[in-house]
Amino acid sequence: MTNDITLQDFAVIDALRAERTGYPEVVYCRGKTVDQAAAIIMAMREKNIPVLATKASPELAGRAAALFPEGIYDEAALTFTIGSVRGEKRGLVTVVAAGTSDLGAAREALRTAEFLGSRVELVCDVGVAGIHRLLERIPLIRRAKAIVAVAGMEGALPGVIAGLVSVPVIAVPTSAGYGSSFGGLSALLGMLNSCTPGVSVVNIDNGFGAGYQANLINLGNVHAHT
Amino acid sequence: MTNDITLQDFAVIDALRAERTGYPEVVYCRGKTVDQAAAIIMAMREKNIPVLATKASPELAGRAAALFPEGIYDEAALTFTIGSVRGEKRGLVTVVAAGTSDLGAAREALRTAEFLGSRVELVCDVGVAGIHRLLERIPLIRRAKAIVAVAGMEGALPGVIAGLVSVPVIAVPTSAGYGSSFGGLSALLGMLNSCTPGVSVVNIDNGFGAGYQANLINLGNVHAHT
Amino acid sequence: MTNDITLQDFAVIDALRAERTGYPEVVYCRGKTVDQAAAIIMAMREKNIPVLATKASPELAGRAAALFPEGIYDEAALTFTIGSVRGEKRGLVTVVAAGTSDLGAAREALRTAEFLGSRVELVCDVGVAGIHRLLERIPLIRRAKAIVAVAGMEGALPGVIAGLVSVPVIAVPTSAGYGSSFGGLSALLGMLNSCTPGVSVVNIDNGFGAGYQANLINLGNVHAHT
Amino acid sequence: MTNDITLQDFAVIDALRAERTGYPEVVYCRGKTVDQAAAIIMAMREKNIPVLATKASPELAGRAAALFPEGIYDEAALTFTIGSVRGEKRGLVTVVAAGTSDLGAAREALRTAEFLGSRVELVCDVGVAGIHRLLERIPLIRRAKAIVAVAGMEGALPGVIAGLVSVPVIAVPTSAGYGSSFGGLSALLGMLNSCTPGVSVVNIDNGFGAGYQANLINLGNVHAHT
Amino acid sequence: MTNDITLQDFAVIDALRAERTGYPEVVYCRGKTVDQAAAIIMAMREKNIPVLATKASPELAGRAAALFPEGIYDEAALTFTIGSVRGEKRGLVTVVAAGTSDLGAAREALRTAEFLGSRVELVCDVGVAGIHRLLERIPLIRRAKAIVAVAGMEGALPGVIAGLVSVPVIAVPTSAGYGSSFGGLSALLGMLNSCTPGVSVVNIDNGFGAGYQANLINLGNVHAHT
Amino acid sequence: MTNDITLQDFAVIDALRAERTGYPEVVYCRGKTVDQAAAIIMAMREKNIPVLATKASPELAGRAAALFPEGIYDEAALTFTIGSVRGEKRGLVTVVAAGTSDLGAAREALRTAEFLGSRVELVCDVGVAGIHRLLERIPLIRRAKAIVAVAGMEGALPGVIAGLVSVPVIAVPTSAGYGSSFGGLSALLGMLNSCTPGVSVVNIDNGFGAGYQANLINLGNVHAHT
Amino acid sequence: MTNDITLQDFAVIDALRAERTGYPEVVYCRGKTVDQAAAIIMAMREKNIPVLATKASPELAGRAAALFPEGIYDEAALTFTIGSVRGEKRGLVTVVAAGTSDLGAAREALRTAEFLGSRVELVCDVGVAGIHRLLERIPLIRRAKAIVAVAGMEGALPGVIAGLVSVPVIAVPTSAGYGSSFGGLSALLGMLNSCTPGVSVVNIDNGFGAGYQANLINLGNVHAHT
Amino acid sequence: MTNDITLQDFAVIDALRAERTGYPEVVYCRGKTVDQAAAIIMAMREKNIPVLATKASPELAGRAAALFPEGIYDEAALTFTIGSVRGEKRGLVTVVAAGTSDLGAAREALRTAEFLGSRVELVCDVGVAGIHRLLERIPLIRRAKAIVAVAGMEGALPGVIAGLVSVPVIAVPTSAGYGSSFGGLSALLGMLNSCTPGVSVVNIDNGFGAGYQANLINLGNVHAHT
Repeated sequence: MTNDITLQDFAVIDALRAERTGYPEVVYCRGKTVDQAAAIIMAMREKNIPVLATKASPELAGRAAALFPEGIYDEAALTFTIGSVRGEKRGLVTVVAAGTSDLGAAREALRTAEFLGSRVELVCDVGVAGIHRLLERIPLIRRAKAIVAVAGMEGALPGVIAGLVSVPVIAVPTSAGYGSSFGGLSALLGMLNSCTPGVSVVNIDNGFGAGYQANLINLGNVHAHT
Repeated sequence: MTNDITLQDFAVIDALRAERTGYPEVVYCRGKTVDQAAAIIMAMREKNIPVLATKASPELAGRAAALFPEGIYDEAALTFTIGSVRGEKRGLVTVVAAGTSDLGAAREALRTAEFLGSRVELVCDVGVAGIHRLLERIPLIRRAKAIVAVAGMEGALPGVIAGLVSVPVIAVPTSAGYGSSFGGLSALLGMLNSCTPGVSVVNIDNGFGAGYQANLINLGNVHAHT
Repeated sequence: MTNDITLQDFAVIDALRAERTGYPEVVYCRGKTVDQAAAIIMAMREKNIPVLATKASPELAGRAAALFPEGIYDEAALTFTIGSVRGEKRGLVTVVAAGTSDLGAAREALRTAEFLGSRVELVCDVGVAGIHRLLERIPLIRRAKAIVAVAGMEGALPGVIAGLVSVPVIAVPTSAGYGSSFGGLSALLGMLNSCTPGVSVVNIDNGFGAGYQANLINLGNVHAHT
Repeated sequence: MTNDITLQDFAVIDALRAERTGYPEVVYCRGKTVDQAAAIIMAMREKNIPVLATKASPELAGRAAALFPEGIYDEAALTFTIGSVRGEKRGLVTVVAAGTSDLGAAREALRTAEFLGSRVELVCDVGVAGIHRLLERIPLIRRAKAIVAVAGMEGALPGVIAGLVSVPVIAVPTSAGYGSSFGGLSALLGMLNSCTPGVSVVNIDNGFGAGYQANLINLGNVHAHT
Repeated sequence: MTNDITLQDFAVIDALRAERTGYPEVVYCRGKTVDQAAAIIMAMREKNIPVLATKASPELAGRAAALFPEGIYDEAALTFTIGSVRGEKRGLVTVVAAGTSDLGAAREALRTAEFLGSRVELVCDVGVAGIHRLLERIPLIRRAKAIVAVAGMEGALPGVIAGLVSVPVIAVPTSAGYGSSFGGLSALLGMLNSCTPGVSVVNIDNGFGAGYQANLINLGNVHAHT
Repeated sequence: MTNDITLQDFAVIDALRAERTGYPEVVYCRGKTVDQAAAIIMAMREKNIPVLATKASPELAGRAAALFPEGIYDEAALTFTIGSVRGEKRGLVTVVAAGTSDLGAAREALRTAEFLGSRVELVCDVGVAGIHRLLERIPLIRRAKAIVAVAGMEGALPGVIAGLVSVPVIAVPTSAGYGSSFGGLSALLGMLNSCTPGVSVVNIDNGFGAGYQANLINLGNVHAHT
Repeated sequence: MTNDITLQDFAVIDALRAERTGYPEVVYCRGKTVDQAAAIIMAMREKNIPVLATKASPELAGRAAALFPEGIYDEAALTFTIGSVRGEKRGLVTVVAAGTSDLGAAREALRTAEFLGSRVELVCDVGVAGIHRLLERIPLIRRAKAIVAVAGMEGALPGVIAGLVSVPVIAVPTSAGYGSSFGGLSALLGMLNSCTPGVSVVNIDNGFGAGYQANLINLGNVHAHT
Repeated sequence: MTNDITLQDFAVIDALRAERTGYPEVVYCRGKTVDQAAAIIMAMREKNIPVLATKASPELAGRAAALFPEGIYDEAALTFTIGSVRGEKRGLVTVVAAGTSDLGAAREALRTAEFLGSRVELVCDVGVAGIHRLLERIPLIRRAKAIVAVAGMEGALPGVIAGLVSVPVIAVPTSAGYGSSFGGLSALLGMLNSCTPGVSVVNIDNGFGAGYQANLINLGNVHAHT
């Protein structure tokens, strides 16, 4: 317990997490006040832990940037990063987004995988409504060691990709859509029921989770040695 | 009211339906006893109305076949037909089924459109898990004047087809699948949220409704003259 | 791939779509920033592609109107259009709205079908609570080659119409209502479970999808020749 | 408490119920063993309380008929009755059923209202798919002092009726239907969201509840005097 | 059709409604612009139809009050009324509200029944958490000819009342509550599943519908003569 | 780990559970084959651990009774017990059931609390439809140190009781009911949204969980000393 | 009835509640206007009843603090308290929160139990993602006589704790999370389905209900004597 | 297209699948008749494709075993296999099951990963109710290159594991449980909302999908070379 960093009354930073899982704790900002998130970031920096803050509001980013000018805010991804886990990026995680509305989650995945040590690429606007756009990019997509596929509405993209490649596809349903998309439920159910094997799914709009999982797959051997 | 055929205490056959809508009433058998369904079929035959009975159990089919040996039972489609609305079939309705599990609804659509006057074709096992199987058949599918696309699980097929053709696609979600398919809900939501325009949807497993709508589209001009 | 128009990092316009499906791509604005939507519209105009932008906010419309003063914004429909697919309008698509609250989706359907080449008519405030208002307009409605029926709450209108006409009815459930309408779910389920054949359904509030499908039905033969 | 009839370990008959509410307790058989239901019926008969048992299985009916040959079993309604609350029937409750599949719930409503003292009539197979069948019967239906309207699928019937009459309509959604009717949910939501005032709703397949409420409305003045 | 009042492009007032159902059309304001609602009210006043406008925002009420200073706005009920259907109020409709949060729907019911011709009373804050408060008021409540019971959360109130009275109870679930009340779903399901007969249910927060139905029950005989 | 009892390939009995939590592991039989459940019971008996098997089918009970004739099967509760945790029963847990259909879950709660060391009482058929039956038994119910309240349908019973006593009420929703009870969902939501404090809830039909929790509350002080 | 405090037209304070249940009524502020809530607080203070107001907005707290400067507002808990039920705090209720986002509900539970007479402790940020943080605090947590466990997302915390302690765990699901947490539904279902006995559940975000129940358990013997 | 194997009227075997994705098509038996499944297996064996048939009923297994005595049926997993994709097994996929009820899905995952070329291990009955059983096995579990975690009810297992290891966890929710587990929904939502990164999820009871994905992760480098 001496290794955990306790912040008064609201948080305990899991300082041994990197030892157990190979990666440091990540700061999930939603549901935290700007004061709480900033305090956590400062405590981590004092221990020289690289920081990835997700779902970071512009307000929080402003506060964090004032404290840590070297930090980087990606306002589409809503991520704020200071440093990264590994200097040299390795392997390849490719993030594929069905449409413009899916770019927030896609970029969150991209930023996450990169922060954790993966080389990354983004392929966008290849929804199944114009299947040729996807097919043309398949050779490019096939170079990845793990794929993140991001889509809203009917969520068909991951299944179509998984039928064309030999690496795992991590599917991210998004809340893009309206009416009977029910906040992303349609895409989520579509992806869970994909008739193609090789797809597994994370929470709606959870680009972070998908980028994390894809990085684990991409860098698998690296961590097996630690 | 004199034109309606009243069966004691449980049914009134809408004898003027053909005049109003161009097509006779169809017998939906679920929720009716075998006695009730048989009585309705007999009453229609007395007026020489051609019969399409849907969701017909083998037990009902046995009873009906004994009464009307000229009737045809399709045990995959669960349809029993006597005669048809129009002798010569016209145009083309193509029914596309994603997988073997979808054949029941697909054949119900096929039988319905044919009974009502359409020329029909069936294309099967072209799910999006192996997209090349679908792409190879697109030239064939493009010859249709209306398409019925039948799929369970993620229900992606209709949207992919609609992006490749210039005719309306009527989508039929099926209850094929398990777990989070929730009896066809995943396919239904997927189809309703298709990002491709040109798709409209009928109830889960409602091959009849899709075949009916596709026939209306296929034969549109014919009925405009009546 | 040379035919697709790639916008940096967020969109690829499907320039061959008209060749495959007979109609150009449409700009769905929700989930896009004003900058992104405007960039897509400009790229399309550079290629002389007629533009239909849907779910366009007043803010986007203001930006677009400044760039393209010939564009037309329908603030009830939330559509912004520049030019149209076909000069002369043909056939007839009739859009029927149950109540005043359904006019947004109804006008979106109307604008869409007209943009794509259909002659259009609007019949409004004919909900089933006062069935005579609908019955009186049935002769008018029967002149259509395809009908779009728009309703919220219990969504009964399309089924009642389909029992009285011989052309396909495309049903649009709307999110009008409150409480157990659950954002349009009640109307959606009602329409999917219509006991009248000849009804197929699009997403909640998806006037665009219904207008598109109705236009395909209305102009069917025209595109068969391309 | 001395007025309640206690059956060992599983039931307490509410013997004062008639005094408080004007009507005796009714035996709801689902979830009770045949032994339990039979014991309750016997205890009520010992006190000369007239019996209405609902959701009564054929097995229970067999047992009850052996004990009380004067009892009447309606196998469509699944009701078993011995005697009735009032000799002479008064007023008029009209039960309207949309289709043959709705007859079970409709007959349960009919039997209930009659047992409790109402004169009753049944109008069947007047679903909104052929609206003329309903319109022709409206003069007949208007004679009622309370109406029970029973329908599955989209559940549009009660709203259409309520727009044409000046008495309360009690709506019974039924589980007739399949797929996205979700066991009667579509009809239930449709009825709750009826755009016509004058409709209130009971549980799915709850013909008993509707018949009970309609009888209260029909005989209102009678009980006001007790 | 000459009796209907057509407002350009968005509404047709059902002027014969009073003849068919005994009561004029009511103006449901949600989903209408202030301009649209005001135009409808003016058109009705030109024909001397008494006006009940429901779900009327303060903004609309301001506009309407400027036009018709004799109108009355109840800001808890969100109703605006001009005149009433019947001068002298008769019978008795009692509206019972479980808690302070339910007063909006309760007052809407009260205003509606009164506008339509009923004498009305309100009993408030008698939720089942302190059952004695309800029991003490039962003698008062028993004087009604129809009862409206309004409750959120678990929605137990109507069932408890119905076990103690001999008149129909119309239950109004409200969206009061949070978390797993899911916007009133918990109260709605509770009321639909009431184990006491004599309860029927309207939509969540639909005080209007309940007041309308209760008035029909209360004044039943009056309208039978028209 | 040497304290756990490992059964080949399918189960590990948590032999230290009593040390950690004060009570031995309980055998939940659903989802286990009769062979698996019997093997677990035998392994526990070899260590002299008293056995409570829940959701035990008659077939399993037959097998278990042949092996352990001293065991007791309660076929309403679906429990099979051998011995008990404590010889002398203490305190008082009172189980209150709304209706006959709720007796299965009620008796499971009763058997569980008794097995774990509580003195128990059952009060049945006191649903809120006849509130006087409950009120009369309140003095009896008040003697308990913990109350289990079991109800299906609207699930109002626990809230009404909690408003009349000063001890915790553990609520068990049951799947008794039909239609919109949706397998116990209506009762579950009703109980979670109870407006009375002092109620907490377990899973639908989970009499075991409620009996366990009530026993913990009842015997609290006893275990504080171990 | 003379003991109840009636506020004009909107509330009746249940002044005998303490006599029946051992604790005074609590003021639930959501759904009440600031005027209504303030009037209730003033009426209670006139009778010297200690006040706990929950879900109190900052605006209400401002008003109340002006009237009763001795009151205490906890802006994380959204509680406003004046006095408390018992001077000396006894026993121990421990509130365990999974993450920073769960602190609102956790503090509401803490404030409630303390107001009602319990000694309280808070343990925070011990979610199951870093299980060692929880395990290290188990000896501390074991000292409680009742535990409140608060968690959002998958809601696993209460079940893990209950497997390690011998006192009741009251679980509070929170709406922390996004996407498929569906406003707390995921945590609620997780907690209801906990495979560990000894857990019962209250409504989403209902820290008050959990604190109340935990206090009843903690002080059980105290109230048995009153 | 010449490479696909077309079976008359119901199936097209995707013979090029191994080329595209590294693995042959798998036979999903649910929704297929025994005749259809057997015909597909025979057609694959004629091309010497190794066979994995999932969700295979005992009846189908009997038929298949008669045709191919070398096949292996695992009746817990419901898999039938003939041959395997790779002779020598490599790496390590560890399947962890929370309880005995989860063994079906767990064994399906095990059989699938093994068939596709992975070395596999099973760890069972380590649910979170007795967390020490899991913690003791963590060193064993850490040796895997990919983990499949199978659990029903609250579905907490995968998140707890992922917090303790540095490899991807593929979570399989199962339909074990009852009441508010809603057929596996509770476990599914729990897993999707896991607060630990490193978890992705497949459909309820989809052991096959998880085993497939885990094998892809485990053997990643192998296929990168083909």
